[in-house]
Amino acid sequence: MWGGRFAEGPSAIMREINASIPFDKALWRQDIAASRAHVAMLAACDIVSAGDAEAILGGLETIAAEYEKDGVPEDWDLEDIHMTTESRLAELIGAAAGRLHTARSRNDQVATDFRLWVRDAIDQTDAGLEALQHALVTQADAHAGSIMPGFTHLQTAQPVTLGHHLMAYYEMVARDRSRFHDARERMNLSPLGSAALAGTGFPIDRKMTAQALGFDGPTKNSLDAVSDRDFALDYLQAAAQCSLHLSRLAEEFVIWASQPFGFVRMADSLSTGSSIMPQKKNPDAAELVRGHSGRIVGCLTSLMVTMKGLPLAYSKDMQDDKPPVFEAANLLGLSIAAMTGMVADSTFKTERMREAAELGYATATDLADWLVRQANIPFREAHHITGAAVKLAESRGVALDELPLADLQEIDSRIDERVFEALSVEASVAARCSFGGTAPEEVRKRVAEAKASLDSAA
Amino acid sequence: MWGGRFAEGPSAIMREINASIPFDKALWRQDIAASRAHVAMLAACDIVSAGDAEAILGGLETIAAEYEKDGVPEDWDLEDIHMTTESRLAELIGAAAGRLHTARSRNDQVATDFRLWVRDAIDQTDAGLEALQHALVTQADAHAGSIMPGFTHLQTAQPVTLGHHLMAYYEMVARDRSRFHDARERMNLSPLGSAALAGTGFPIDRKMTAQALGFDGPTKNSLDAVSDRDFALDYLQAAAQCSLHLSRLAEEFVIWASQPFGFVRMADSLSTGSSIMPQKKNPDAAELVRGHSGRIVGCLTSLMVTMKGLPLAYSKDMQDDKPPVFEAANLLGLSIAAMTGMVADSTFKTERMREAAELGYATATDLADWLVRQANIPFREAHHITGAAVKLAESRGVALDELPLADLQEIDSRIDERVFEALSVEASVAARCSFGGTAPEEVRKRVAEAKASLDSAA
Amino acid sequence: MWGGRFAEGPSAIMREINASIPFDKALWRQDIAASRAHVAMLAACDIVSAGDAEAILGGLETIAAEYEKDGVPEDWDLEDIHMTTESRLAELIGAAAGRLHTARSRNDQVATDFRLWVRDAIDQTDAGLEALQHALVTQADAHAGSIMPGFTHLQTAQPVTLGHHLMAYYEMVARDRSRFHDARERMNLSPLGSAALAGTGFPIDRKMTAQALGFDGPTKNSLDAVSDRDFALDYLQAAAQCSLHLSRLAEEFVIWASQPFGFVRMADSLSTGSSIMPQKKNPDAAELVRGHSGRIVGCLTSLMVTMKGLPLAYSKDMQDDKPPVFEAANLLGLSIAAMTGMVADSTFKTERMREAAELGYATATDLADWLVRQANIPFREAHHITGAAVKLAESRGVALDELPLADLQEIDSRIDERVFEALSVEASVAARCSFGGTAPEEVRKRVAEAKASLDSAA
Amino acid sequence: MWGGRFAEGPSAIMREINASIPFDKALWRQDIAASRAHVAMLAACDIVSAGDAEAILGGLETIAAEYEKDGVPEDWDLEDIHMTTESRLAELIGAAAGRLHTARSRNDQVATDFRLWVRDAIDQTDAGLEALQHALVTQADAHAGSIMPGFTHLQTAQPVTLGHHLMAYYEMVARDRSRFHDARERMNLSPLGSAALAGTGFPIDRKMTAQALGFDGPTKNSLDAVSDRDFALDYLQAAAQCSLHLSRLAEEFVIWASQPFGFVRMADSLSTGSSIMPQKKNPDAAELVRGHSGRIVGCLTSLMVTMKGLPLAYSKDMQDDKPPVFEAANLLGLSIAAMTGMVADSTFKTERMREAAELGYATATDLADWLVRQANIPFREAHHITGAAVKLAESRGVALDELPLADLQEIDSRIDERVFEALSVEASVAARCSFGGTAPEEVRKRVAEAKASLDSAA
Repeated sequence: MWGGRFAEGPSAIMREINASIPFDKALWRQDIAASRAHVAMLAACDIVSAGDAEAILGGLETIAAEYEKDGVPEDWDLEDIHMTTESRLAELIGAAAGRLHTARSRNDQVATDFRLWVRDAIDQTDAGLEALQHALVTQADAHAGSIMPGFTHLQTAQPVTLGHHLMAYYEMVARDRSRFHDARERMNLSPLGSAALAGTGFPIDRKMTAQALGFDGPTKNSLDAVSDRDFALDYLQAAAQCSLHLSRLAEEFVIWASQPFGFVRMADSLSTGSSIMPQKKNPDAAELVRGHSGRIVGCLTSLMVTMKGLPLAYSKDMQDDKPPVFEAANLLGLSIAAMTGMVADSTFKTERMREAAELGYATATDLADWLVRQANIPFREAHHITGAAVKLAESRGVALDELPLADLQEIDSRIDERVFEALSVEASVAARCSFGGTAPEEVRKRVAEAKASLDSAA
Repeated sequence: MWGGRFAEGPSAIMREINASIPFDKALWRQDIAASRAHVAMLAACDIVSAGDAEAILGGLETIAAEYEKDGVPEDWDLEDIHMTTESRLAELIGAAAGRLHTARSRNDQVATDFRLWVRDAIDQTDAGLEALQHALVTQADAHAGSIMPGFTHLQTAQPVTLGHHLMAYYEMVARDRSRFHDARERMNLSPLGSAALAGTGFPIDRKMTAQALGFDGPTKNSLDAVSDRDFALDYLQAAAQCSLHLSRLAEEFVIWASQPFGFVRMADSLSTGSSIMPQKKNPDAAELVRGHSGRIVGCLTSLMVTMKGLPLAYSKDMQDDKPPVFEAANLLGLSIAAMTGMVADSTFKTERMREAAELGYATATDLADWLVRQANIPFREAHHITGAAVKLAESRGVALDELPLADLQEIDSRIDERVFEALSVEASVAARCSFGGTAPEEVRKRVAEAKASLDSAA
Repeated sequence: MWGGRFAEGPSAIMREINASIPFDKALWRQDIAASRAHVAMLAACDIVSAGDAEAILGGLETIAAEYEKDGVPEDWDLEDIHMTTESRLAELIGAAAGRLHTARSRNDQVATDFRLWVRDAIDQTDAGLEALQHALVTQADAHAGSIMPGFTHLQTAQPVTLGHHLMAYYEMVARDRSRFHDARERMNLSPLGSAALAGTGFPIDRKMTAQALGFDGPTKNSLDAVSDRDFALDYLQAAAQCSLHLSRLAEEFVIWASQPFGFVRMADSLSTGSSIMPQKKNPDAAELVRGHSGRIVGCLTSLMVTMKGLPLAYSKDMQDDKPPVFEAANLLGLSIAAMTGMVADSTFKTERMREAAELGYATATDLADWLVRQANIPFREAHHITGAAVKLAESRGVALDELPLADLQEIDSRIDERVFEALSVEASVAARCSFGGTAPEEVRKRVAEAKASLDSAA
Repeated sequence: MWGGRFAEGPSAIMREINASIPFDKALWRQDIAASRAHVAMLAACDIVSAGDAEAILGGLETIAAEYEKDGVPEDWDLEDIHMTTESRLAELIGAAAGRLHTARSRNDQVATDFRLWVRDAIDQTDAGLEALQHALVTQADAHAGSIMPGFTHLQTAQPVTLGHHLMAYYEMVARDRSRFHDARERMNLSPLGSAALAGTGFPIDRKMTAQALGFDGPTKNSLDAVSDRDFALDYLQAAAQCSLHLSRLAEEFVIWASQPFGFVRMADSLSTGSSIMPQKKNPDAAELVRGHSGRIVGCLTSLMVTMKGLPLAYSKDMQDDKPPVFEAANLLGLSIAAMTGMVADSTFKTERMREAAELGYATATDLADWLVRQANIPFREAHHITGAAVKLAESRGVALDELPLADLQEIDSRIDERVFEALSVEASVAARCSFGGTAPEEVRKRVAEAKASLDSAA
C-alpha cells in the first residue's frame, strides 16, 4: 500500500508534506532580523534579562554568518526555518535560547518574516522597473521622430512614432510601480507580538519592534494579523499585471522580429541562433517573458484558491503561500531584466518601419480631418469622401498622395492643393499634437517629463 | 454546415459575435456624459459651432430621457451603445449629429465610458463596504466581552472574544476599501481625445473634458490610453480579494450555524427553511457568498487571460473586458449586502460559544505564560510543564483549573495558588491586552477608533 | 444602511441572491423531460396511480407548450425552474401535482436536469467541431501543395505546405472531440432517485428512468450523485482546451492578415471594414475568438474555485455551477462557428506565402540533410558546413541555390551538383515524406484518411 | 543598470532565463530511453551504421549509470537535458555521437520525452488512487452500518452511514482514475520523427520507435506533434479535479476533527501536536491537502495561459510547460498518499456521530414518506403535516419519536402507531435501499462490487 516514495508509510508522507524548510529557508535573513528586533524589545521591556538578550543576539549573529557562508541546513525534522534557527541557537547558547520565543508564536513570526520578504521583493522589483523605464525613455528619446505604422487589430491604421509607442510602455510601467508602491504601503504594518492568534499578556512594546523593522506601526487585530495574506496577494496581483504588460511588449518583439515585419534586430545576447541557419535569431527571451506571464498568473490563482473559504485564524493551508510568491518574484525579476535588455540593446530597423507606415493608406484619417477642418464638412460625411478616395487609389495601386488633384476634386470639389501637405506620414504624425498625441514634439515633451521624474526619484 | 443557431451562415455568426450592445448598453449614462463633455469642449475650442453644439446637447438630453424611461433599444446591427446613441441622435437632429464624433473615435470613447463606469462601481462598492464595517463594529461593540474559542486549524486554541473576531473582518474590509481607493486614484485620468490611437490634429482641450468628467487630468499617451485595461483589472483584483475575505466569513457562518457548533442563529430573512424541517435554517446566503467568490476569481482570470500578449493598440479582444467586470460588480455588490445583513441580523449564541471556549484546555498557554512570568522559567520549559498538566487533567476528565494545587505542584513545585487566577477563560482574554490583542478593553479601544474613523468619513 | 438597490433590506437581498430562475430557466426542456420520466416510473412502480400520472403528464405537456411559445415566466419568488414548473402544474391539475415530487428532491432533480443540459451541449459542440474539421480538410485538400514558411519562434524555419498546417488543427480538433466524447461517456449516469442525499425508501426503479433519459444507468452513490459537478467541470475543461486551440488559429489569422504578412484575405462576412479605409479588413471575428478563450478559461476557473473544499452533500454554493457553463457553451459555440467560417471563406494568398517561404534560407536544413545522406557526414558537422554556406549566401544577398557550385565546394569539397535538386522549396517539402511529414503526397494521404473518417461517422 | 543578480548584463540574464536544465533534468530517463529507441531504428533503417549505433547505445548506457549514481550535472551553458546528454556522449564516444541527432530535432525530442514522463506520472498517480480506493473501501466496509448525520448546507438533513459517505469518495476517485486513463490513451502517440516541425527526408520508421517506447503509434502531423501540449493540459486538468475531490474530503476531516464535531481522531502520524496542549491534534496533513488544491489549480491555469494564442509550430514559451506539471505531480502524489493514510489510520468516533445524527429531527423526511406511503397523502401535503410535528417536538424539546401518538394524531388523524417504526435513525437508513441509497445492505453491495473491481484489476 505504501509503495514507492513513501515505503515507510504515513510518517514519511507527513515528514515530506509538512516540511517547509525546503522553501522557507529563503526567509532566513528576515527571520533573524525579526528575532533580533524581538529580543531587543523583550530586554527593553524587562521581559528577558540583558544578559540573556545579549547571548541571544550573539547567537543569532553567529547563525547569520553560518547561513551566509554555508547556506541553511535542510533538516526536515526541524520542519521550518524558525525551528531550524531556534534549534541551532540552543546548541550555541543553551537554555537562554528558550527565552527568545517569549511573547511570540510561529504564527506571528512567519507572518512577520514573510511580510519583510515581500517588502524586500517589492523594492527589488521597483528597482528593476525603474531600469526598464530608463531603457524605454532612452530609446523613445532616440526615436521620438522615427515613423512606424500604428496598428489596431494588427492592421495598419495611422502612422505613429516609435518613441510614442515605447512611451506607451513607460506609462504601463509607471502604473505597475504605483501598484507595487500601494501594496508596500498597505502591507507595512508589523504582525509581531500578535502571538498565536490572541495577542499576549506579556508587557511587550509592539511599536518598538515595528519601528526596528521599518514598519509604519503594529497591526491592529491579532486574529487578522496571523491569518492575513493580503500582502502576498497584493504582490502577486501587481506582479501578474506587470507580467501581462511585459507579455504584450514581448509579443510585439516576436512579431516585429519575424521576417515579414523585420522591424527589429534582437541583440545577440538575448536571442539564440542556430548552427545551421546563422542568420536566424530566435527571440527566445521575448518568448520566455511571454510564457512566464502564464506562470505568474498561475501563481496568483494558486494563492487565491488556497485562501478561499479559510476560517480564522491560522490554518496550515497558508503554508502554501510561499512557493507561488517566491516563484513569481523570481520569474518577474528575470522577465523585467530580459525586457530591459531587449529594449536597450535591440536595433530598430527604422527604414523598414517607415516603409510599412506608408502602406495601407495610413493617412486616410488625415484626409478626413482635413476635410472637416478646411471645408467644415461633418465628420461622418468626410469619412465617406475619404473612403471614395482610398478606393480610387487602391484601384490604381498608388498611395493617396499620388492621386492627381483633379481626381480628388472629382470626388469632392472642395478639395484643393493644400490637401497634399496633410497626406505624408510626416505631416500625419506632426499634426497629432494634442496632449498625449504622437507628434514628435509632443513625444519629446513627455520624454523630458519622464526623464525629469526618473532623475528626481534617483 | 451552418445548421442550428447560425443557419444563415457567417453573416449571422458575425452579427452575434460582434455585437456588444447586449451588454455595453449598461454604459449608456457614461456614454452620454462623455459625449456632453466632448461637444461642450468642441464648441469652446471653436471646432463645432455653438448652434451645432446646442443641437447635439439637446438631442443627447432627449436620448437620456428615452433610455431612462424605456431602456436602451438592442439593435444588433448598430453593434454597440456608441452607434446606437449616435444613430438616434442623427434621427433627432439630422446632419449636425455627424459633428459629435469630431476629434474622437470609438476607441477613446469606450475607454472613457468604461473607466467612468468602473469608477462609479468603485464608489458603490465602497459605500457597501462602509455599511459592512458599520455592521461589524456594531456587533463587535456589543460582543467586545463575549468569549468564544479562538481557533487555529479549526482546533480550539485560546479563548478570544467575538468582538475581537469580528474586528478582524473590519480590518480586512479596511484593506479592501484602501485597495479600491488606490484603484480609483490610479484610473482617474481621461482617455478622451486620444482618438483612434495617435491623438488628433484638432485643437482640442483634453484638460477641459477631463475636468468636466471628474478626472484628475488627461492620460499622457494616446496608444496606451486606448489599449489599457489596467483600471478594469485593478477593479477585478480588488473585487477578488474582497470576495475572498467574504468567503472566509461566509465559511465561518456556515460552520457556526451547524448543529454541532450552534454558535449562531441566522436571520430568517437570509436563510431558507424547509417545509418539512421548520427548525432547520439553511445558510443559503452565506453559501452563495462563498460560491460567488469562485465566480469573481473567474472573472479576474478571464480578463487577465484575454489581455495576455495583445499587441498595441486596440484589438477587438478587448471587447471581452466588460462582461467579467459587470458580472463581478453585480456579484460583489450582492455578496457585500448579504454579509452585511448576516452580520447585522444574526443572533450569536454567546453561551454556547463560551462553553466551547472552556473545552479543549484553551487556557493552557496561560499556564505556560504564568510560569514564565511568575517563575522566570524559559518559555520552552514552561511549555513542557504545561503539557504535563494538560495530560493529567485530560486523564481525569477535568478542566485545567479543576486540578488540585497539590497535583500541579507535583508536576512543578514552583506553581502556587495564584495560578488559578490565570486559568479561567475570562482571565485569559483579559490578560491579552497587548496592542491588537483580544482583551475586551483593548477590543473596545479598537472599536472606538473604528467608529470615530467611520464617523469622520461620513 | 440598505440604500440603493436593496432599500428594502435583507429580504430584498435574499430574494435576489437566492433566485436562480433568471439563468436556470434554460433547463426547462431537461426539467420537463426528467419529470416525465420520473412520473412514468412512479406509475409503473405503483407509487402513484395511473390517473394521477396521466394528469401530471398532460400538465407537463401543456407547460412545455407554454414555455415554447411564451418563454419561461421569471418570478423570483418561485426561485428556480423546478418550483416554477411545479407551481404551474398545481395551477393546471390541482392536488395531484403534489405527487410528482414523490421519491425525488430538488437535489437529484437539478443534478439530473443539468447533466442532461451538458450532455446536449456536448452533442452540439461536437457537431460544430465536425463542421470545423470539414472546413479544415476541404482547405487542406485544396492546399496540400501550397507552399508557405513553416515557423518556429515565428521565424521562418523550413518550408511546409498550407494543407499540412491546416491539418495540424484538424488533429487538435480531433483531440477536442475525443475529450468531449470521454466527458459525455463519464457523465452519462442518472442521478435521479438519489433524492435529497440518502436515496429513498420508495420502491423506485432508477434503471427505468435512466433508460428513459438516455443514460447508461443510474449513479451508484446518492451522496455523490447530488454533490458531484464533475460533469460540468469535464465540460469546461474540454471547452477551455478547445478554445485555446481556436485562440492559436485565431492568432495566426490575425498575424497572417496583417499587411507585412499578407497571407490571407478574410471574408467580408467575418471582418469589419472602416468607412474611411475601405481596403482595411479588421479581423474582428478572429480577435473575438482569441478573446473568448480568456473568458472560457475564466469560466473553468470559476467553477473549480467554487467547488474547492465543499463538504458533502449538496451546498448552495453549487448553484453557481450553471452561469459559467452556460456562458462557456455560448462563447464556444460562437467561436467554433466563427473559425469554421474563417477557414472555409478566407482567401489564402498562396503566392505571397510561397515568396515568404523562399526568404530566410528555409532550405538550409535540406542542405545539411543532403550532406548527411550523400556524403555520410555526421549530423553536427553537416550543420556547421551549412552554416558557412548560409553565411556566404547572406553576405552576397542571394538565396542558397543561387550560390555557384564552386563556392559551395570551396566550403566543402564533397558537395556536388546534385545538391541543387535539394535546395528549392518544392524539393524541400517533397522530401519530407516521413509519416506525418509535410510532403504533399503525405498530406494528401492524411486528408484522405480524415475525409474517410468524417464520412464514416456521418 | 544591471545591478544585483545580473551584474554582468544581458548575457547573464539570458543564461538564466534560457536554461531549462535546472528542471528538465527530471526527464533524463525518458530522454535516454527515446535516444535508444531512435538510434536502434536509425540502424535498422540503415541510416547509421551498426557500429555507430552500438557505440551510441553503449555511451547512453554509461551515461544512464552516471546519472543514476551522481545525478545529472547542471551546466547552464548546455541549456537542457538533451544537450547535456549529447555533449557527454561526444566526450565518451567521439564523432559518432554526432549521428544520434540524425532525423530528429530538439522539438520532437522534448515532445517525446515529456510525453513519456507524463505517461509515467499518470501510472504512478493511478497506483496512488487505487491505494486510496482500497483504504476507502476497507473503512466503508467496516462502517457500512455506522450511522452519522448526512448534511446538506452543513445542516443535519437525514441520517446516512459512514460507509455510504466514504463510498461517495470512492466514486469520485473512480472518475478521477477514468479521467487519467482517458488522458493516457489520448496522449499515447509518438511525436518522435516529426523533427523540427516538418518531418524528415530520411527513410525513418516512426512506427518502430513508437512501438519501442510503448506508444500506440506515431502522431499524424509533424507541426501538431511539436507544438501540442494537450497531453500536459490533460494531465493537469485531471490532477486539478482530483485535488478538488481531495480538498473536499480534507475539509470534512478538518471539520470532523474540530472539538464541537468530534467525529474523528486523526492518526498521530498525520497530525501535529503541540508541546503545550498534548491533547490537541492539528489536522495539518488535511489542511495541506486542501491548500495544495489551490496550487494544483494554479499549475493548470499557468499552462493554459502560457499556451493561449501561440502560433505554430514550436515557440519557446512552451519551455514553461514543465515546471507546473512537475509541481502538480509532486503535490498530487503527496496529497493522495496523505489522504490514503488519513482514511486508513483515522479513528472514527461512531458514537458521537450517531448522537449527532439523532439531533436536528433528521428523520422528519421519514415521517413524511410514511404519510405518503401508508396514508397515500400527496408529497407536498405530507411535508406540511411533518412540519407541524417537528414544530411541536421542538417546542417540547423532545425527539420526533418521543412525541406521544395522541399528539401526532391530533396533527393528523391518519397517523397510527406503526409510524414509530419509521422514526429511528436505524429505520431511516435501513429504509433507503433504493439503488445507490444509504441502507447498510445497499452500501455493502456497492462495497462488494468495488472490492471485486479492485481485485480484478490487480
